Amino acid sequence: MTLGSLIHNKKEIGRLERDFGVRVIEGVDDATNDKTVIIRTHGIPKNELKLLKEKNEKIVDATCPFVTKPQQICEKLGNEGYDIVIFGDVNHPEVKGVMSYAGANVVVVLDAGELKNKKLSQKIALVSQTTRKIENFLKIATYLIESYGEVRVFNTICNATFDNQDSARALSCDVDIMVIIGGKDSSNTKQLLNISLENCKDSYLVEDENDLNPDWFADKKICGVTAGASTPDWIIKEVVEKIRNY
Amino acid sequence: MTLGSLIHNKKEIGRLERDFGVRVIEGVDDATNDKTVIIRTHGIPKNELKLLKEKNEKIVDATCPFVTKPQQICEKLGNEGYDIVIFGDVNHPEVKGVMSYAGANVVVVLDAGELKNKKLSQKIALVSQTTRKIENFLKIATYLIESYGEVRVFNTICNATFDNQDSARALSCDVDIMVIIGGKDSSNTKQLLNISLENCKDSYLVEDENDLNPDWFADKKICGVTAGASTPDWIIKEVVEKIRNY
Repeated sequence: MTLGSLIHNKKEIGRLERDFGVRVIEGVDDATNDKTVIIRTHGIPKNELKLLKEKNEKIVDATCPFVTKPQQICEKLGNEGYDIVIFGDVNHPEVKGVMSYAGANVVVVLDAGELKNKKLSQKIALVSQTTRKIENFLKIATYLIESYGEVRVFNTICNATFDNQDSARALSCDVDIMVIIGGKDSSNTKQLLNISLENCKDSYLVEDENDLNPDWFADKKICGVTAGASTPDWIIKEVVEKIRNY
Repeated sequence: MTLGSLIHNKKEIGRLERDFGVRVIEGVDDATNDKTVIIRTHGIPKNELKLLKEKNEKIVDATCPFVTKPQQICEKLGNEGYDIVIFGDVNHPEVKGVMSYAGANVVVVLDAGELKNKKLSQKIALVSQTTRKIENFLKIATYLIESYGEVRVFNTICNATFDNQDSARALSCDVDIMVIIGGKDSSNTKQLLNISLENCKDSYLVEDENDLNPDWFADKKICGVTAGASTPDWIIKEVVEKIRNY
């Protein structure tokens, strides 16, 4: 069983349950000791990991190393008396996990403006949710450097996301229509859509080939395709195949 | 005696020698044990301080605490294996002093472009010469954050300089002519001149009232006056008095 959806893609989750018997549970309470529990790439809060370990010996921790890193930074620097600023969405599972390691003095923000009414110590550590855009991270860093004595900036943005975003940005400039494949709840997929929309107004998000609408492709010559970080190859293939047929 | 000019103002240096017998020496070699040696606000390199202490017991260390701070940061983080980036002028005495504490892996730059061909470690500490402008410091910080894993930014720009620059900027918008009083070799005075020139093309740098030119004031209604950090009050008074008489 996996604690939370392994990826933001219902079709793949369905395939894993059907073919391999992998079930999704929503919380530690639902874990049972007879089955291995997989912790997904986002990681989980420190106290939940502790509870899970007390309850279940069979744990596969698949937390992404890019997520483990900000967790470790928060724990170490929180203990050293730094105030921690996390750039990210406070409701995102990854951020919930990361912030649980920071101790009491942690602030989660999506932009620099939210820091204006905060009073922090003169020693600050800054980390980012792995799937965020560097531009806003730099604005937050800049605000903190102007306002506080020491700002320890850890660029924990995942290069894969970053490279993927750059490619989507470049591609969306050269096409008539962009198709972004990924989960509709996925943070990094939604960001790919927003980046594409900056250059190509005909950008569409699909979870699989069934979401494609033939009308989108009328009078269009060049179609660009990109996909969220954890979209399986077989879904991408099916989408591309269907687009070719239009 | 003072090691180097105490301030960048020949007239004040003359007054100190004439009235108080304070002589300027250019290097540690010129120090003699019968006279107290004053270390000026800029500080001196670590090895020179060591030599001076071996040679002379009567030392008054007047290094500004705003300069001692980046010296200490460089020493501590250099020892912890950080590569050190100093934003400043490599030929300025303050920077020569600060960089001497950093150990082997130190780079001094005046703008972010100079970092492009440098290969640094993934752990970097950034400090600034105290009299620099925050805008360029932030550009350097931004470049480093984009390029390296951990950037520990210490905003060591002196608030006094900073506040003085803001005031000069505001004042220069509202006047017909700006007079900046300070040493022609002084870094912070030259920056005040550059800031004033952005808003008021009739901005002039004077060391004292003898540098004033009556022609500058023809047809001018409002004159703004600002002064470098260490310009003595009595020089400012004499300049203002002479301007009033025009």
